[in-house]
Amino acid sequence: MDRRKFFRLLGGGVFLASALKGRAQAPWDEKTFEPTRTLGAPLSEYGGRSPFEEEVVRYISPNLRTRHSGADFAPLEKLEGVITPNGLHFERHHAGVPQVDPKSYRLVIHGMVERPLVFTLEDLKRFPSVTRTYFIECAGNGQNGYRNPPDPNLTATRSRGLASNASWTGVPLALLLKEAGVKPEARWLIPEGMDAAMYTRSLPLEKAMEDVLVAYAQNGEALRPEQGYPVRLVVPGWEGSIQVKWLRRILVTDLPAMAKDETSEYTDVMADGKVWAFTWVMDPESIITYPSGGQRIKPGFHEIRGLAWSGHGRITKVEVSFDEGKTWRRATLEPPVERLAMVRFKLPWYWRGEEVVLWSRAWDEKGNTQPTREEFFKKWGRNNRYHYNAIQAWRVLPDGRVVNGDRPLLGFAQGPGGGCDGEVFDV
Amino acid sequence: MDRRKFFRLLGGGVFLASALKGRAQAPWDEKTFEPTRTLGAPLSEYGGRSPFEEEVVRYISPNLRTRHSGADFAPLEKLEGVITPNGLHFERHHAGVPQVDPKSYRLVIHGMVERPLVFTLEDLKRFPSVTRTYFIECAGNGQNGYRNPPDPNLTATRSRGLASNASWTGVPLALLLKEAGVKPEARWLIPEGMDAAMYTRSLPLEKAMEDVLVAYAQNGEALRPEQGYPVRLVVPGWEGSIQVKWLRRILVTDLPAMAKDETSEYTDVMADGKVWAFTWVMDPESIITYPSGGQRIKPGFHEIRGLAWSGHGRITKVEVSFDEGKTWRRATLEPPVERLAMVRFKLPWYWRGEEVVLWSRAWDEKGNTQPTREEFFKKWGRNNRYHYNAIQAWRVLPDGRVVNGDRPLLGFAQGPGGGCDGEVFDV
Repeated sequence: MDRRKFFRLLGGGVFLASALKGRAQAPWDEKTFEPTRTLGAPLSEYGGRSPFEEEVVRYISPNLRTRHSGADFAPLEKLEGVITPNGLHFERHHAGVPQVDPKSYRLVIHGMVERPLVFTLEDLKRFPSVTRTYFIECAGNGQNGYRNPPDPNLTATRSRGLASNASWTGVPLALLLKEAGVKPEARWLIPEGMDAAMYTRSLPLEKAMEDVLVAYAQNGEALRPEQGYPVRLVVPGWEGSIQVKWLRRILVTDLPAMAKDETSEYTDVMADGKVWAFTWVMDPESIITYPSGGQRIKPGFHEIRGLAWSGHGRITKVEVSFDEGKTWRRATLEPPVERLAMVRFKLPWYWRGEEVVLWSRAWDEKGNTQPTREEFFKKWGRNNRYHYNAIQAWRVLPDGRVVNGDRPLLGFAQGPGGGCDGEVFDV
Repeated sequence: MDRRKFFRLLGGGVFLASALKGRAQAPWDEKTFEPTRTLGAPLSEYGGRSPFEEEVVRYISPNLRTRHSGADFAPLEKLEGVITPNGLHFERHHAGVPQVDPKSYRLVIHGMVERPLVFTLEDLKRFPSVTRTYFIECAGNGQNGYRNPPDPNLTATRSRGLASNASWTGVPLALLLKEAGVKPEARWLIPEGMDAAMYTRSLPLEKAMEDVLVAYAQNGEALRPEQGYPVRLVVPGWEGSIQVKWLRRILVTDLPAMAKDETSEYTDVMADGKVWAFTWVMDPESIITYPSGGQRIKPGFHEIRGLAWSGHGRITKVEVSFDEGKTWRRATLEPPVERLAMVRFKLPWYWRGEEVVLWSRAWDEKGNTQPTREEFFKKWGRNNRYHYNAIQAWRVLPDGRVVNGDRPLLGFAQGPGGGCDGEVFDV
């Protein structure tokens, strides 16, 4: 049904009649009026959520061996708009979340530079600042998709929740590097964190000079401890693991470090057995958050909703299919559509109670799109667990329950996939 | 100094030398390395701020007679970017913050409609949604400016902190009204809240049909209780008082209600003694947050930073003056510059230690700008306390302290101003 026709029908009061078909009209109950009879709570210095929202939490897999190393998921189907609230931004760490005193905090830049420098947090905040909305996504996002057969109880959260979107403020790394005076032979940066893992990655100098931020704020306030308080790297569009948190040091050098955190993990084993050492740019992703796995809907009008993003550039289009990819309908993108940030997509839909499978597919400005599951595994094989960005399908059953709509892979072994026997976020 | 020259100097390492002039180089202390020796905190379901950020709070005036009716201020000079974090969004209520159970929540639309309707929260979320970033500003923002002589200890927070900026998600009120079927003779809506004040205002139907949202989410999660949980009106660009929180009922009618909350307050007494019954649209505002009152700066480079917004439309320009309005320099606006939302402005500046007064002035797409203090009082007089949007001046003293740079008004009486002897937010 096109949007204009939909609104004309709206004018005739069709929506609600169909939307509420079968629901008993119980306008209100005794509790509805109580708040008007009670003096409310006083002004407060820092607000908290309503107690009625306490079940909206990050998902932590019960299968994790420890909570001191691992990840948890942003509850995507419970969020609105595009901003991920600070308390629900996904987490990923390797030795717990350090507690850093901002007064003792220092950032050292040294190595192939004219002058090694030490910055306090106050110094960093004195530099010209930049604020941009960027998604951050774990390279391991979507790894549930490696399972064969697919997990029937999958939710949008467990499918793609190792991703979040926030407004980041910081100083361009390029300015700090110019301060230090990068020598002409330098090619790589080795950022290091001050967590107990002293987490380390290798970052090409080109990307650093382009748009990397040394960030100290997240949605207007200081970074949350689990997002790297007080300072982290934000590397727009690139895998989360390279966006070093609790940043304390950057070594300027001419070779990558081949650090533990980029060799024991985050390399990609392809179908042909070859290995990609570095896969930095996050490919296009989309996830329908409503209706999605674990939810239950009634016949009538629904606005299909979801999120899409790509590390290659701006999202240009998101399509939804109701026939497993034979035909596609274009969704609306909520403005402003920002580059390297999440976008909210929406599509009006009328469900009459038939069994149907919903697919979503995002396109970016470079012409990239998401593969189907079959296409993905032909290229990547199943000895890997990163960079899964295949289309996520949701199946709506006639009773309204929504379950994982992915189909089993033929010709592939059963099991969780996932290559190395390291920690697995969610099985 | 223009931006290009500034960056060339940067390349020569000039910045840091001048920025750190006089500071003892104490690179780090014992505490700097501790976090690498301690296993960090585990994954958590809902994140909180670092304990080191606990002093970043809303400002509550010690002069309030009660905290169950009044307002508190967003700590503007402690925020970054444009998003106001949910815990720090300014508050305003008249009988405390009600606690509303979303299961019992109902929104009634009745009066001059074809069919009166009752919506649950679930119903509202089924409708097509819209997400937009909008500022909300109290009509009483800036009222410290009515004081004569000016308060020397004014801060950016106390000057313009009854304003905040967030991404709001909700259903267009127009859709709900179409569902109910508005009768042709209707002209006004009377929204009512379910707080103990049963706070009520009158809203013209035209504006309701244009862009008013019945909102249920704030920066991705449910509204905070103090911002109206579970449902509020968002009336883009208009005074905060009309954006009824804890919305429970909308009466569709043909006359304004002339309710208590728009007659005992929020009418504007002009200099000529006449009274504006309704002043809905918020005029352009800007506030330099750094350097601002209560801060202390050192000679060297500073990025002057601030926020600007207007209820008339998009901000087109923000200017800064260093000579009390004789000449102006144009600041950079951080993209994306969204309509009826706050914008962050920035200007590189080199302070050599001279006494100087900083002014900022915002222009919107309709050609409106801020008046000087003198211009403002010529028009509005001092028997009022709303809609103060005159330029806020900050004076930088030679020792680096920043104080209120506003000058006393000549020919006006001394005192707080403020007309009616009602609650005053901050004296």
